[in-house]
Amino acid sequence: MGSTVPDVLHPFDPLTLGEIEAAIAIVKKAHGNVFFNVVSLQEPRKAEMTAWLAAPETAPRPKRIADVVVIAPGGKVYDGLVDLAEGKITKWDLLDGEQPIITMEELQLVEHIVRKDPKVIEQCILSGVAPEDMHKVYCDPWTIGYDERYGSSVRLQQALMYYRPDVDNCQYQYPLDFCPIYDADKREIIAIDIPKVRRPLSKAPSQDYHPAAVEARGGYRTDLKAINITQPEGVSFTITGREIEWQNWKFHIGFNYREGIVLNNITFNDKGTIRPIFYRLSLAEMVVPYGNPERPHQRKHALDQGEYGAGYMTNSLSLGCDCKGSIHYLDAHFPSRSGELRTIKNAICIHEEDAGILFKHTDFRDESVIVTRGRKLIIQQIFTAANYEYVVAWVFHQDGTIAPEIKLTGILNTYAMNDDEDTHGWGTQVFPGVNAHNHQHLFCLRIDANVDGSDNTVFVSDAVPSAAPVGSEENYYGNGFYNRRTKLETTAQAKTDYDGTTTRTWEIANTNKLNPYSKKPVSYKLVSREVPGLLPKEGSLVWKRAPFARHAVHVTPYQDDQLYPAGKHVPQTSGDSPLGITTWIGDGTANIANTDLVFWHTFGVTHFPAPEDFPVMPAEGMMLLLRPRNFFAGNPVMDVPPSYCSVPSLVGGGKEGFKGVVDGVSRLAFGEVNGSCCKK
Amino acid sequence: MGSTVPDVLHPFDPLTLGEIEAAIAIVKKAHGNVFFNVVSLQEPRKAEMTAWLAAPETAPRPKRIADVVVIAPGGKVYDGLVDLAEGKITKWDLLDGEQPIITMEELQLVEHIVRKDPKVIEQCILSGVAPEDMHKVYCDPWTIGYDERYGSSVRLQQALMYYRPDVDNCQYQYPLDFCPIYDADKREIIAIDIPKVRRPLSKAPSQDYHPAAVEARGGYRTDLKAINITQPEGVSFTITGREIEWQNWKFHIGFNYREGIVLNNITFNDKGTIRPIFYRLSLAEMVVPYGNPERPHQRKHALDQGEYGAGYMTNSLSLGCDCKGSIHYLDAHFPSRSGELRTIKNAICIHEEDAGILFKHTDFRDESVIVTRGRKLIIQQIFTAANYEYVVAWVFHQDGTIAPEIKLTGILNTYAMNDDEDTHGWGTQVFPGVNAHNHQHLFCLRIDANVDGSDNTVFVSDAVPSAAPVGSEENYYGNGFYNRRTKLETTAQAKTDYDGTTTRTWEIANTNKLNPYSKKPVSYKLVSREVPGLLPKEGSLVWKRAPFARHAVHVTPYQDDQLYPAGKHVPQTSGDSPLGITTWIGDGTANIANTDLVFWHTFGVTHFPAPEDFPVMPAEGMMLLLRPRNFFAGNPVMDVPPSYCSVPSLVGGGKEGFKGVVDGVSRLAFGEVNGSCCKK
Repeated sequence: MGSTVPDVLHPFDPLTLGEIEAAIAIVKKAHGNVFFNVVSLQEPRKAEMTAWLAAPETAPRPKRIADVVVIAPGGKVYDGLVDLAEGKITKWDLLDGEQPIITMEELQLVEHIVRKDPKVIEQCILSGVAPEDMHKVYCDPWTIGYDERYGSSVRLQQALMYYRPDVDNCQYQYPLDFCPIYDADKREIIAIDIPKVRRPLSKAPSQDYHPAAVEARGGYRTDLKAINITQPEGVSFTITGREIEWQNWKFHIGFNYREGIVLNNITFNDKGTIRPIFYRLSLAEMVVPYGNPERPHQRKHALDQGEYGAGYMTNSLSLGCDCKGSIHYLDAHFPSRSGELRTIKNAICIHEEDAGILFKHTDFRDESVIVTRGRKLIIQQIFTAANYEYVVAWVFHQDGTIAPEIKLTGILNTYAMNDDEDTHGWGTQVFPGVNAHNHQHLFCLRIDANVDGSDNTVFVSDAVPSAAPVGSEENYYGNGFYNRRTKLETTAQAKTDYDGTTTRTWEIANTNKLNPYSKKPVSYKLVSREVPGLLPKEGSLVWKRAPFARHAVHVTPYQDDQLYPAGKHVPQTSGDSPLGITTWIGDGTANIANTDLVFWHTFGVTHFPAPEDFPVMPAEGMMLLLRPRNFFAGNPVMDVPPSYCSVPSLVGGGKEGFKGVVDGVSRLAFGEVNGSCCKK
Repeated sequence: MGSTVPDVLHPFDPLTLGEIEAAIAIVKKAHGNVFFNVVSLQEPRKAEMTAWLAAPETAPRPKRIADVVVIAPGGKVYDGLVDLAEGKITKWDLLDGEQPIITMEELQLVEHIVRKDPKVIEQCILSGVAPEDMHKVYCDPWTIGYDERYGSSVRLQQALMYYRPDVDNCQYQYPLDFCPIYDADKREIIAIDIPKVRRPLSKAPSQDYHPAAVEARGGYRTDLKAINITQPEGVSFTITGREIEWQNWKFHIGFNYREGIVLNNITFNDKGTIRPIFYRLSLAEMVVPYGNPERPHQRKHALDQGEYGAGYMTNSLSLGCDCKGSIHYLDAHFPSRSGELRTIKNAICIHEEDAGILFKHTDFRDESVIVTRGRKLIIQQIFTAANYEYVVAWVFHQDGTIAPEIKLTGILNTYAMNDDEDTHGWGTQVFPGVNAHNHQHLFCLRIDANVDGSDNTVFVSDAVPSAAPVGSEENYYGNGFYNRRTKLETTAQAKTDYDGTTTRTWEIANTNKLNPYSKKPVSYKLVSREVPGLLPKEGSLVWKRAPFARHAVHVTPYQDDQLYPAGKHVPQTSGDSPLGITTWIGDGTANIANTDLVFWHTFGVTHFPAPEDFPVMPAEGMMLLLRPRNFFAGNPVMDVPPSYCSVPSLVGGGKEGFKGVVDGVSRLAFGEVNGSCCKK
């Protein structure tokens, strides 16, 4: 298994450094010095791309187009396209009252300005910060979200304020109670939100997680012995450019500023037939609403991907720390604000893990047995959104299952509280003087479906009892139950919610192709159980701004560029007029049956903080499954070599079974006497 | 870290071979030759045991008592107790109309008798089996469940019939359509259930999963490279007898015929204070109802633990096959039916696994970072219930979380179908002529709670929006939401169900101890999302026989010997009178608040079979979490050595960070040039 770099770019490849540089030069030449907000691949038009994928030798190769967003002097925002082959700008639209994504560089500026602002200094002093200690004041700058007092024409941030007695202290232990508002064009503080009840700076001794603090508390535990994971024969995947092949899977691994990892053209080699499954998979948006209704906390509802970008915020990963074993990394390239280049090394980690038992069966008669171990492939990134970290893993299994998995770690967003203060149930005191507010993390999985072809249909699938009563002829003993499948015909019908009482799933099916045995349409089923629903109410600010989160599932007919369900430019939207997915749903009559469709699924967790989450949170995970159902004609992993298999004819003859992938390195923990590896 | 064997047995230890032998000898001496159904530890009375645990040096050590069940000539069933120190029988009760657990030996007998029965042979011939091929006819003998035509006084089994053209064929491809009924006392077939519509033996070519079949189809895949997992410094746990200590956890690992693994006296060392959490954890019962209401399929609803035993059916595990890495095994000992001894070697596997990122945080200002990897401890068994295998893992995390995890694999139970037959939605054709019926796998987790002491209280915990409307002063922006906690006071109130709309959890709290910061009671929260509910209707046969499955949660006051919620003797119960948990719930008025309580949780999956599950099922997993909430005063894993940590003062000074557990063996997949292990 190896890695090769082809001579020519794949149309799904992110822009290279050279392409970003070229796009910047073209824009600069035409429009002078501007701030570069986005320079990213405009993904090929699907019709063109599909034609090319079907016949790469003969069909025209889709053009390389850069999607460009800039902020010109005076805060003017332009949305443009650059044709890289032609070297020309093909679109250059001035936006009206829209704010593009906030870059890390913009965020970095705020703290410096906050520290020097006289009114902020005044508030700091009022809070108990010594005037000479302003360098110990920090802020997490967030987009303002939406504040009706200011609207969306001025680019604003809110500065969530903290203090560090020592530079190495975790600042979230020392929140300040006021909130400066920053104008990004003027680079100044234009207002400060000050609460009615004041909460002076906490004097509690710190409880940090860094080595010096742990040493002072008695040091690290010493009873954890190393686990080594090695692949002496190499890895089981092959990479060509950014296309990966592994265990019958093949797909392209893209990456952009917004969604981070994007997987395209996911296919499965079913005994020689390359079967398409998904045209594109990504996390398209997220929202983290906080549940404290007191002003100005309603503004805490980060749409992190649209407001800051899961690509822009992604971590440079470390071998052996973020991921163990035999790892392949891919880098990410972005423009800097001024038009330089920025590379995030090791933005994506690709590796395999043992997945435990893939299947096993023992015949109770003679103990003839088969046991086969599974393997999984993990495509992973980690991004830091101010206090939180999100570990996003796309996990592929040999049996055709894709399991997107998200782990939350990092630090709670915190607010100041007084000793005797009642949190009114909107938050929890996790440390003296620290109120961590209730919140949700809701993610929107975008599935551009391609199950055995582009014409797909979604069914809601419920497990329900027979309607016939106990004692009736049809259901005498009362045990009848079945799978009720409801076809979704229109975008209005497709607004569906999770139902725990029927352990609801959704099937993305191709009704034009039936399984040879079950005679049911080939399908992929979404199994998702962490579906809390949006707790902010209908008509609330969050409900308006994050329309994708109103239902667990939406389905829309495919259209190019309908990628971001809270709108392309998310900061400071009010949600008062339709945006993103609400515009694509339209009047609800559009057909979504047996057509090229996009399936949107919002899932996540509701988090009521507790002290064990502080000062840094042990990772909390959630996973969902995209499982083949009636897709294959049989178990697709029977040809994975078993660890051991004996059959009745051998057992009967007293013979040894088949040793497949014998694990010669597993050992007894304490060197006791035991049978040899695998079956006696 | 090591393993030592103390001189004296722990009161929770299962009976040793010597003790089983002694108990058998005592019974034989008193009652002659009987069939030994059960010879198992009667666990110590809790009051005695708690006193001893509190003062093992001074309090009396609980006696070793054997719980004995025998079948005497004439099918008479006796339930007895043997005091092993005194060498005497202290209880010997004749049961009336109760059938004890079916042993593997009893099951093994049926096939031989079925093959010779003239009426069965007649049916086989009618089905298309040649008279000389009766040795190719197989049966999976199940307890009859309950059949009102026969009641419970005669010990009966139903024989689910199959055919193997070749001895190595998977028989589930060739089901036969009739069902003989076997009398275990007479050792003869007393009736045959014959369906109205006949379904002759399938002639479809086989599709097996064994090596010869895979070779004939082109052979095993060759592109899977080994993953080696080693612990050169040894494991991180210590075993003393059957007590394990690992990462602040300490508990006793028991095992019995019925529940398999039993974990007792689970404590966590919280900075020097040994805090009890659970007195006992086990899977106490399960039920697998099939959803085809046509006779006699209503009898397919195995209560596998009560009817056959998760201990009796457990696999002997293989190093490197069932579990990889550095493994410690424990054996299990049982009586044979005639009073000999039977040992299942390697019945329990104990090992550690890397658990990915435990926590991580990067400061976006300077990229100072901490990344710490987690570890988990796994106590695992696998049992085979005829066609299915159940992989049961008790997973302990460093952060105080316990995550019981079950994987299903093995083979679908199948029934014959004709080519043009309509399954009426009760099943799926997974292979030509093979109808796999809808079914559920429902497990009952028994939690004998001991959260910081024995007096505990259960709260239902729901995530709900503020009642105040959008635009009101209390909830102007509509984002308010909170954690609604409802105290359960009585056994009647405690009958609660999962609510997906509030992502319901349950808290087992000690209201006598408050968290120092949050001021909330210390608690363990059950997070369980695979809660389909029992699909057989209220009043149905399954509903009557499996009362634990009527609700997701029940709570009862603790009483010795209230272990098995479908009754102690499960085969052939009708459920017409109260049994198991229904008797313990009683009239519903018993107090369960601030008292010693047992929490019962039923969870699982609903399975609508598909062809990819056949002929052997890729493992399907489910997991639930018992998480500390407001239990600790802060993150309990800050002293786990990080892989890497840099702090702002070091980053500012251009210095390297702290390298904790540096992984020196992780490598780049393709040997590309990259930074060294861990942070640059």
